[in-house]
Amino acid sequence: MDQKAHTIQPISLHDITIDDSFWNGYRRLVREVVVPYQWDALNDRIENAEPSGAVHNYKVAAGEVDGSFHGMVFQDSDVTKWLEAVAYLLVSGRDADLERTADELIDIVARAQQEDGYLNTYFTLKAPGQRWTNLAECHELYCAGHLIEAAVAYFQATGKRRLLDVAIRFVDHIDTVLGPEEGKLKGYPGHPEIELALMRLYEITNDPKHIELARYFVEQRGVSPHYYDEEYEKRGRTSHWDVHGRAWITWHKAYSQAHRPIADQDVAVGHAVRLVYLYAGVAHLARLSGDVGKLDACRRIWRNMVERQMYVTGAVGAQVWGESFTSDYDLPNDTAYTETCASVGMVFFAQKMLEADHDARYADVLERALYNTVLSGMALDGRSFFYVNPLEVHPTSICHDHKYEHVKPVRQRWFGCACCPPNVARLLSSLGQYVYLVDGDSIYVNLYVGGDAKLRAAATEVRLRQTGAYPWDGEVRLTLEDAGGFTGAIALRLPDWCANPEVRVNGNTVGLAAVTVDGYARIERDWATGDVIELTLPMQVRRVSGHPRLRHSAGKIALQRGPIVYCVEQADNNGDLHLIQVPADAQFEVLDGAAVDERFAGRRVIEVDGYRADAEASAGPSLYRYDEPVAASSKQRLTFIPYFCWGNRGEGEMRVWVDADRKKIV
Amino acid sequence: MDQKAHTIQPISLHDITIDDSFWNGYRRLVREVVVPYQWDALNDRIENAEPSGAVHNYKVAAGEVDGSFHGMVFQDSDVTKWLEAVAYLLVSGRDADLERTADELIDIVARAQQEDGYLNTYFTLKAPGQRWTNLAECHELYCAGHLIEAAVAYFQATGKRRLLDVAIRFVDHIDTVLGPEEGKLKGYPGHPEIELALMRLYEITNDPKHIELARYFVEQRGVSPHYYDEEYEKRGRTSHWDVHGRAWITWHKAYSQAHRPIADQDVAVGHAVRLVYLYAGVAHLARLSGDVGKLDACRRIWRNMVERQMYVTGAVGAQVWGESFTSDYDLPNDTAYTETCASVGMVFFAQKMLEADHDARYADVLERALYNTVLSGMALDGRSFFYVNPLEVHPTSICHDHKYEHVKPVRQRWFGCACCPPNVARLLSSLGQYVYLVDGDSIYVNLYVGGDAKLRAAATEVRLRQTGAYPWDGEVRLTLEDAGGFTGAIALRLPDWCANPEVRVNGNTVGLAAVTVDGYARIERDWATGDVIELTLPMQVRRVSGHPRLRHSAGKIALQRGPIVYCVEQADNNGDLHLIQVPADAQFEVLDGAAVDERFAGRRVIEVDGYRADAEASAGPSLYRYDEPVAASSKQRLTFIPYFCWGNRGEGEMRVWVDADRKKIV
Repeated sequence: MDQKAHTIQPISLHDITIDDSFWNGYRRLVREVVVPYQWDALNDRIENAEPSGAVHNYKVAAGEVDGSFHGMVFQDSDVTKWLEAVAYLLVSGRDADLERTADELIDIVARAQQEDGYLNTYFTLKAPGQRWTNLAECHELYCAGHLIEAAVAYFQATGKRRLLDVAIRFVDHIDTVLGPEEGKLKGYPGHPEIELALMRLYEITNDPKHIELARYFVEQRGVSPHYYDEEYEKRGRTSHWDVHGRAWITWHKAYSQAHRPIADQDVAVGHAVRLVYLYAGVAHLARLSGDVGKLDACRRIWRNMVERQMYVTGAVGAQVWGESFTSDYDLPNDTAYTETCASVGMVFFAQKMLEADHDARYADVLERALYNTVLSGMALDGRSFFYVNPLEVHPTSICHDHKYEHVKPVRQRWFGCACCPPNVARLLSSLGQYVYLVDGDSIYVNLYVGGDAKLRAAATEVRLRQTGAYPWDGEVRLTLEDAGGFTGAIALRLPDWCANPEVRVNGNTVGLAAVTVDGYARIERDWATGDVIELTLPMQVRRVSGHPRLRHSAGKIALQRGPIVYCVEQADNNGDLHLIQVPADAQFEVLDGAAVDERFAGRRVIEVDGYRADAEASAGPSLYRYDEPVAASSKQRLTFIPYFCWGNRGEGEMRVWVDADRKKIV
Repeated sequence: MDQKAHTIQPISLHDITIDDSFWNGYRRLVREVVVPYQWDALNDRIENAEPSGAVHNYKVAAGEVDGSFHGMVFQDSDVTKWLEAVAYLLVSGRDADLERTADELIDIVARAQQEDGYLNTYFTLKAPGQRWTNLAECHELYCAGHLIEAAVAYFQATGKRRLLDVAIRFVDHIDTVLGPEEGKLKGYPGHPEIELALMRLYEITNDPKHIELARYFVEQRGVSPHYYDEEYEKRGRTSHWDVHGRAWITWHKAYSQAHRPIADQDVAVGHAVRLVYLYAGVAHLARLSGDVGKLDACRRIWRNMVERQMYVTGAVGAQVWGESFTSDYDLPNDTAYTETCASVGMVFFAQKMLEADHDARYADVLERALYNTVLSGMALDGRSFFYVNPLEVHPTSICHDHKYEHVKPVRQRWFGCACCPPNVARLLSSLGQYVYLVDGDSIYVNLYVGGDAKLRAAATEVRLRQTGAYPWDGEVRLTLEDAGGFTGAIALRLPDWCANPEVRVNGNTVGLAAVTVDGYARIERDWATGDVIELTLPMQVRRVSGHPRLRHSAGKIALQRGPIVYCVEQADNNGDLHLIQVPADAQFEVLDGAAVDERFAGRRVIEVDGYRADAEASAGPSLYRYDEPVAASSKQRLTFIPYFCWGNRGEGEMRVWVDADRKKIV
């Protein structure tokens, strides 16, 4: 397995073109709305919004203007994440103005770099004497990671090295400060990010220094005596983030997955974004190192996460406290934290596991997170965002009950801590990276996203075109525009939600039993230009039920069609959504979303004859009743909309899990 | 109604003797365990417990010893609440040692009183210049209230005036500082308590000054411009309780029910204990003033509380944040706060409403709170306590999910903020006050608690004996030991949980339809010594269901027998209690608790043939499943124990609401 992994063929950003009825709109939004708006935000040009100061900080550090640092200790990363999204946009469509803006910004960033290669405006401007004194809390390496990612992406997109050279110079500097060698600090980041960034850098530089620094950060993590404690003592017990009078991150090491070495970790704990970022980096390192031990650690954490701590929407991080994981099978729907960034990070982690293990189940989770929670993070018009993605919302309670305080019933225009919107932007604009995976003579098709691909497999160049109307329709067509003499396998993911997939090659049905390996239909042959693979993934509406130990979904079902998880909203079904019920023999009708609201046109909604317990008839004021006869229910036509579409029509109740007919006991 | 209320005949503590198989044990625990233990705690004689300093503070203030103040700003009230409980104990059983201890303590308290009558050790010792500068936050009047209550009780119990005189002198002082007259501060307490205390004081002094001061505090509350703001500005914007950098109580006025005048309040909001204390005082004031407006305010708040914000256990205060009410029909079971003190205060409020309105439904709620949440606050052995009384506990999650942090799976030995244990002690030792109510020629029997009563009704003295085995058995017998020529009504509460009560007088069945008024069976006659009233309250096990809008109990039932609400515990039923189910046609078997555990002997438990969804058979690792066939269930004998008995056998899952058979829809 690990040997096979070594033969993965990188796919250039330029070789994938997306042209897809579902994604085109999102990608246009990112280009036309999200990225321009964010540029204004970063330059403090949005009225009535808290100033960002992020670009200003770089300008001050570059000596261009006078001023002082503004914002969070990780403010720099807002700029570099924006730059990364811009890089991807420049690949998918030329935009001279945007590229000039980016180049000018890069120039400022470059001039903010210090003589010794150091680059972080918070420390340069605000705390120059405190560099590298608080790795646990101060996001110094996290910001470095985002700088590296932006630099790699911008280089890949434009071929321009300016930012890449800056990043490499900074990495060289970091390498002189931190590391296993005598005289260097034995630190590592409180917020992982640089690990996965260094691995991305290594993939383009092949400089052993880059992978070795990543390895150092991964292997040093959680080692005793603990570096967080040492630096805490060394700097005189000061704290950047005091929580209840405690240097919280130093104290609560599991929050940063630094409570023990990675080799000894087996449960997903702590801050969810940190975990998925960290393990995305570890999985990448493990694959490129052929390190079975590290890969096993990744597999353990992955399994714990997806088998015990993941919502049906693919979201993770059940609680607001520490934005963190909780415990096995504890997935409350109404207090869920489920940060958008954690789902973005899930996509990263899943992708790295997929590259290592070539098992379609990783792509199933990637798809689940992508089509549900990542997308729910952004409004349909691209102009507002969720940080938190609950599975049940009851707006009246949100206003009054503090345990729901983090839950917003409608998306927000922006955030004081604005990590999520640019993360959605960079993921959606780089979607092409997740469609195909090439390993030796195998082409894996992981996402069903329309467009063209130029892939290098079995030492030849293959041109593929994918068409279809996924995720609303399960007919996918792959045409070999140019087979280039390719002999090998095209492996089509058979999604876990599909009970009865069919594959035809040039019209001839393929017997799947014989060719299904790790969730893929592997079609091996000598391919010819013009060959057509037709994949049929029948999209019945499926009733999803939770594991029996999942008490928050006990007696309930969710609906899923294709990869899309559905929900009910008050706007279509009236309030008190706990009163509605989907009978066991329900016949589902799939309609175009326009039937519900013009904003949903082109999407699919589900209608079904269900029931509603009659609250008024049996009510009366009494809160509790004795031996009440079975409540009368009346028929109600129920409307389910895609979860990612919720909250686009003002404030109202929403829930993913609805009451099912109970099991008949005999 | 208000006119009638004026004729209520106070019942002396000395005229009620409790001798009851259920309560004797609790009252013995209070005498032998709780009060002695608390005395040790107040004197810092408990090893490994946080020092209280409460008695020490008084000694320092009295000039007896050197030292400084220790503890909370309301530390004094721990001492006076203890004294109040002691007063009641001295009524129900002579104890020369205890009385001497109390007298000596009272002597110290008296010597801690300042020249001008002021008495509060925090301000005397720690902040002498800051008296009356922070009424919103600093519990100065709250402590005064508890001092008054203790003084009234000790006077009623022993006839000794020492503490009463101290309290009256302090009230005189308060009256010179606060009030509507020019030159006085226009303040009122952040934590209500003095209102109900002043009304108790007024009932023994008949001094108009005392009721007028109570009236002032009630009527000044929430008036604009707001006193909390004025004093905040006046003292230079300092804060005693800074929450998130904000003078929180000043800012969040609804927390203290000071957001608007009481006349304009119609929803139960804010800190639950404050609300029930406040409205107990308002209801008392309203009755004695014949003030229909204030009584209507009480009725509005009461109805909102019991019809929309009360748990089936009688507990209130759904959230940990602000220990407060939330919104209508928002009663989560696993994150419930439901402080023991709030249930104690519910008893106070209910009693005052009962005195005003003579409607048995108030006594039903009083009984519900008393037998369920007040009792669950204390372990069966009297040695540990719950501050928080959840209706569902899942210990594994409690450790990992911060939103459950306030929930303890087992009772604690003591608390840093030790308000609840002494509150339980003073309530249980004064239980006699709640059994009967006399108004003119009507004797209301509100609680079915065995013992003797000497009551003054229709200008004659009536001696009653009550016997029975309530709450386990519904046969209650009232014997007129001495009718004293009483002509009038004996009104027996017909509890809301009882579908088919029967009453016999001297063996002759009474037709209840004709004599039932406001939930009481009113038996009017010329009573003769030796007359016997037999009340039969059949105690079927009842399936309780929640109001349809109560989403947290949707599809679930609770069991109740008599006033006792039941729960299931892991110890008897294994874990994953969300998997068990009580069928619609369940036959309940009521057994002596010894069948389950010796500690439950004499109590009643319920067994029933139920079901458990088979988690293991259908499980597999997958967290979500598609179109899964109905889960197999196997029969399981289920054991329900009284809710107040939960958590006496170590840590484990518990829940009150269990899955019911779903309604059949036709």
